[in-house]
Amino acid sequence: MTLARLNNLTASLLTSKLDAVILNPGPTLTYLTGVHFHLMERPVVLFVAPGQDPVLVLPELELPKLVLFPYKVQGVAYGENPSEWENAFRKAAQSLGLDGKRIGVEPRQLRLLEFSHVKAGAPESEFPDASNVLSALRLKKDKAEVDAMRRAVKIAQDALEATIPLMKIGMTERELSSELVIQLLKNGSDPEFPFAPIVSAGPNSANPHASPTERKLQAGDLLVVDWGAAYDGYISDLTRTCSVGEVED
Amino acid sequence: MTLARLNNLTASLLTSKLDAVILNPGPTLTYLTGVHFHLMERPVVLFVAPGQDPVLVLPELELPKLVLFPYKVQGVAYGENPSEWENAFRKAAQSLGLDGKRIGVEPRQLRLLEFSHVKAGAPESEFPDASNVLSALRLKKDKAEVDAMRRAVKIAQDALEATIPLMKIGMTERELSSELVIQLLKNGSDPEFPFAPIVSAGPNSANPHASPTERKLQAGDLLVVDWGAAYDGYISDLTRTCSVGEVED
Repeated sequence: MTLARLNNLTASLLTSKLDAVILNPGPTLTYLTGVHFHLMERPVVLFVAPGQDPVLVLPELELPKLVLFPYKVQGVAYGENPSEWENAFRKAAQSLGLDGKRIGVEPRQLRLLEFSHVKAGAPESEFPDASNVLSALRLKKDKAEVDAMRRAVKIAQDALEATIPLMKIGMTERELSSELVIQLLKNGSDPEFPFAPIVSAGPNSANPHASPTERKLQAGDLLVVDWGAAYDGYISDLTRTCSVGEVED
Repeated sequence: MTLARLNNLTASLLTSKLDAVILNPGPTLTYLTGVHFHLMERPVVLFVAPGQDPVLVLPELELPKLVLFPYKVQGVAYGENPSEWENAFRKAAQSLGLDGKRIGVEPRQLRLLEFSHVKAGAPESEFPDASNVLSALRLKKDKAEVDAMRRAVKIAQDALEATIPLMKIGMTERELSSELVIQLLKNGSDPEFPFAPIVSAGPNSANPHASPTERKLQAGDLLVVDWGAAYDGYISDLTRTCSVGEVED
């Protein structure tokens, strides 16, 4: 399945006049490889260029993950000293002949940490925004993806339904948020949520991106819950408003 | 407290020959402001330049958070259409007179999404790595910080101790990982963990950054748990190895 996705990407790159894309840990990398990497203090970057095996720059301690890839990937590993990073990125870019070429990027995911090293390894290249190319690939979901999304919605709904009976006046927003997280996990969510649940009551509920506070739930509060679950990397994002006890008109 | 931190930053910028720093959502932004923002599809950037009020570029729907800042911050808000971003960033950079200046960045945190807009708003500027300046500020912890770190360690330890009695042969790595997350929350962790717990047994335990799988725990497995808690934004990161039942020499 991921090989078909890689082939689709290759075809898209050719029609988009991109010579390559670079991907750091995030949804697109997982989508294309089926392998999960953490976004961390060390750079991990997959270079995909049509007609060549993808190249992955990664720390030596992550090398065991190379066997998880569903197709051949050339690993370029670096050791513990960050001074080795530059050389690894140059080697990756040179092995694919990418200097001076058009290398697509994902600005919402790629950090300066990775970008500056790729750029140093291919100083004459251009780095156009490839978000549209990559999101177009992921736009049409296959059955497994639709099933995972439905499951992520169901987990979130079930978790809220299990949380509501536990709600009590005097409980803090933070306590309610923790209970909702516990119910998300008990109902089968991946532990890496799309975002930490927002539970905000009374005056805080007017702030759409509030963080849960130590404020206690009071009778008559309006309560906003904005939360989601993850299943197999696919996420849901729901928002519900309810009242704590009876509310005046 | 955060005002003192801002003043320390200002002093550091002057001695480091930096005219400003830009910060997107992450630990440094929270450290300096006490306000929490999500890293999301919309850019949020705080510009700090000595001698001037900080300027925050943010979406209109986040404007209610401006009142949470402990010192005066000038908000530059944009609406729903991403085409408004460019203008907001230009306005922020111009209001601080930053074009052509040295604007420090955090490469491990800043994405191309934010960086490209700041750069478009200050095209003649340089963007040196300010990681060392910013981490030096945060190196010396005050009592509240040390207490939060100790608490994050204690929460993590207590959570593992509560999880061990629940371990059973036949349980999957994922199930054990979910149980550990539940115990982290019950013991008081913030819901935004430093990373999702790694629970890996048997052959998977040789991979230091394994993701928990559907593999069931077997008698004689070596089990590696790499996990952490968060408390008030401060984190812990522990690793323990144990055996599932008795292990042969």
